[in-house]
Amino acid sequence: MVAEIITIGDELLNGTHVDTNSVHLARRLDTTGLEVGYITTTGDDPDRLVEAIHLALRRADIVITTGGLGPTDDDITKKAICKAFKRNLIFHENVLEEMQKRFAARGVKMPSINQNQALLPQGAKFLANRIGSALGIIIEEGGKFFCAMPGVPIEMQIMTDEELAPLLRLKAGTTVIVRRRIRTAGITESALAEKIRPALKFSEGMTLAYLPSVRGVDLCIRGSGTVKEEVQAGINLMAGSIREVAGDVIYTEDDRELEQIVGELLAEKRLTLAVAESCTGGLLGGRITSIPGSSAYFKGGIIAYSNDVKINRLNVPRETIEQFGAVSAETAQAMAVGATIIAAADIGLAVTGIAGPSGGAPEKTVGTVYIGLAAFGKGKSERFAFGGDRDSIRERAVTTALNMLRKELIGALDRKM
Amino acid sequence: MVAEIITIGDELLNGTHVDTNSVHLARRLDTTGLEVGYITTTGDDPDRLVEAIHLALRRADIVITTGGLGPTDDDITKKAICKAFKRNLIFHENVLEEMQKRFAARGVKMPSINQNQALLPQGAKFLANRIGSALGIIIEEGGKFFCAMPGVPIEMQIMTDEELAPLLRLKAGTTVIVRRRIRTAGITESALAEKIRPALKFSEGMTLAYLPSVRGVDLCIRGSGTVKEEVQAGINLMAGSIREVAGDVIYTEDDRELEQIVGELLAEKRLTLAVAESCTGGLLGGRITSIPGSSAYFKGGIIAYSNDVKINRLNVPRETIEQFGAVSAETAQAMAVGATIIAAADIGLAVTGIAGPSGGAPEKTVGTVYIGLAAFGKGKSERFAFGGDRDSIRERAVTTALNMLRKELIGALDRKM
Repeated sequence: MVAEIITIGDELLNGTHVDTNSVHLARRLDTTGLEVGYITTTGDDPDRLVEAIHLALRRADIVITTGGLGPTDDDITKKAICKAFKRNLIFHENVLEEMQKRFAARGVKMPSINQNQALLPQGAKFLANRIGSALGIIIEEGGKFFCAMPGVPIEMQIMTDEELAPLLRLKAGTTVIVRRRIRTAGITESALAEKIRPALKFSEGMTLAYLPSVRGVDLCIRGSGTVKEEVQAGINLMAGSIREVAGDVIYTEDDRELEQIVGELLAEKRLTLAVAESCTGGLLGGRITSIPGSSAYFKGGIIAYSNDVKINRLNVPRETIEQFGAVSAETAQAMAVGATIIAAADIGLAVTGIAGPSGGAPEKTVGTVYIGLAAFGKGKSERFAFGGDRDSIRERAVTTALNMLRKELIGALDRKM
Repeated sequence: MVAEIITIGDELLNGTHVDTNSVHLARRLDTTGLEVGYITTTGDDPDRLVEAIHLALRRADIVITTGGLGPTDDDITKKAICKAFKRNLIFHENVLEEMQKRFAARGVKMPSINQNQALLPQGAKFLANRIGSALGIIIEEGGKFFCAMPGVPIEMQIMTDEELAPLLRLKAGTTVIVRRRIRTAGITESALAEKIRPALKFSEGMTLAYLPSVRGVDLCIRGSGTVKEEVQAGINLMAGSIREVAGDVIYTEDDRELEQIVGELLAEKRLTLAVAESCTGGLLGGRITSIPGSSAYFKGGIIAYSNDVKINRLNVPRETIEQFGAVSAETAQAMAVGATIIAAADIGLAVTGIAGPSGGAPEKTVGTVYIGLAAFGKGKSERFAFGGDRDSIRERAVTTALNMLRKELIGALDRKM
């Protein structure tokens, strides 16, 4: 079974948006054991889309499109489907009612333009959209499976994982594909490669990819074969060989984020956390609270962007800032201690640095960041030099702070410290 | 002139890598005035690539590929080119010498496998690669322009900008493409469409696309024609017709982010800002401080995730929380006032809500968010109901808070308030 993905939208053809939908879909198809032959991207042009659908139906068994299902004029996918499959759009009363109910539940009047979204191709089946109003559309004809999904990434992802994936599994044959993600923080791609490459144990049908980002480097092991147990054994062998040499730079071997791992460690040790942020301006707190239930261990903190707030609210001594600077080991440490006091937390985590683009100096260039950590009255801090633009520096600072806390938590840090 | 991009590599078809090469190329083609009809992605499979090249040469005038030019066995682009254009690979002595020189300059012996890279299609022209060993390959035949570039993003980008772009400009001819982005916040895609559609003044060669995200809806006007002034006039006419009916939901007509617009308004009015965040946990401060120079107007604030911090640090009366709840108009307003005091700022902006997935109640469901705004001792707050998952609700809350402040700033809010 060969699959083809078609992503739709002018914004993908003129370089305005990066197409992440096809990545999510491709990964899902791949892990289901379905080969992707081509990915085609086309714009909001009905003729080109009809041609792309025809072509895909000739060369693939499964065709999946994303995008162009919204209620406005530039959403042309339904028209193209009708043309490609020679069908009419018909009004689905039950779909409209369902949509009206959802708007009503939010206390919002449904804009009349949304009625368009109840106009759907004749004889199609539909996939539920849990968080948006565009349904997925499935047409099966002449042994081919066609599915159109909305282009809003979160809607497409949920629909793929919850609604489409079970249908795809029925189509897949006997090829077994297994993936394992090993997530690392605090090490560069090349340093990680140098460390693990001599130790790697490859077996038949296995590949290893490095996926670096500002949040760390993910190692993606992929194995394929016909016997699940054999593929799994190969994955385990390689993962083991990586684990042996990579050590504590690995924070998880599943999809959990670093902030979730840190949260679980805090909850397990019954410790509470507070933050004090200067150059990250709240991003560290934002990452920590992205985890549902984080209120169990996260109390809050101070965004100390100005020196006044550092001095008056975090009790960083004015002399510390005057003598060492707002970006210094001493200030970072005092901020961390201040955070524990102001939020009555066990642990304080603080970030102060120069995110740029201006504000650098010869001894403290743009990218210089100090991270402070305090627990039970004791504090410490560490200096880092991050590369990249303002956004990257801030993201790296947040990740590094979380990773520093993780290492403390798996090490000595405990109530007894 | 229509262009087609072909990106090559198994890693793009199985969801391991995000294709950023086509984004860079598409943007470059678009700004040069060349329309991109399709982007096709295929794997390291020579037959599929030959088919993709044939197809692209039929439906486009300019075909550009990236990837598959390396020295190893899975690099199949040169073989596919020879098959598609019926040419032979011949050995280019001068290319080899050039390569050997570069390795020598780095004090490295050239691996013998790199000799492959001097084997290049007969009758082709080449594009220099300043930082890698794979040359770009150009074949012009039957009025079509074909170019193959390496897939390493930085090599491809430099080659595109320095070597390919001047050639593309010669091809662009007389078509002029002009774009305008109109950015809105605080209105859904459908409500916006309903508002502007009756008023829209379209002229020849103009399109309008809606780009919704959790941060608002961008309207993208694109006009093409042969006379720049005429295209520009058409864009102005449509933008004017949108402006007339959309009113203050538009926050900018260029690429600036909402947080930048808000920052500029604050700086202009010499007002300072502080935040108090509960469910957003710091994301609002994070967005505000993503703007370089935000320290001129942003003082900081409190991440009041726990009620203790709300009561003890923001001086929200305990009775207010007990009587109305932590998620209430009264608490939001008190938090905003507290923020101005703690950070000695003119304006306080506060967010408290239920981001989910749990924690909802019949009268306050997941997605219920109160935003408080205080200035010069006076406060107010507003209730919102956001859809989507935890991340979307938090992002929408941040955007809505910024937009509420923007509206105040363009309205009455001033020192005299």
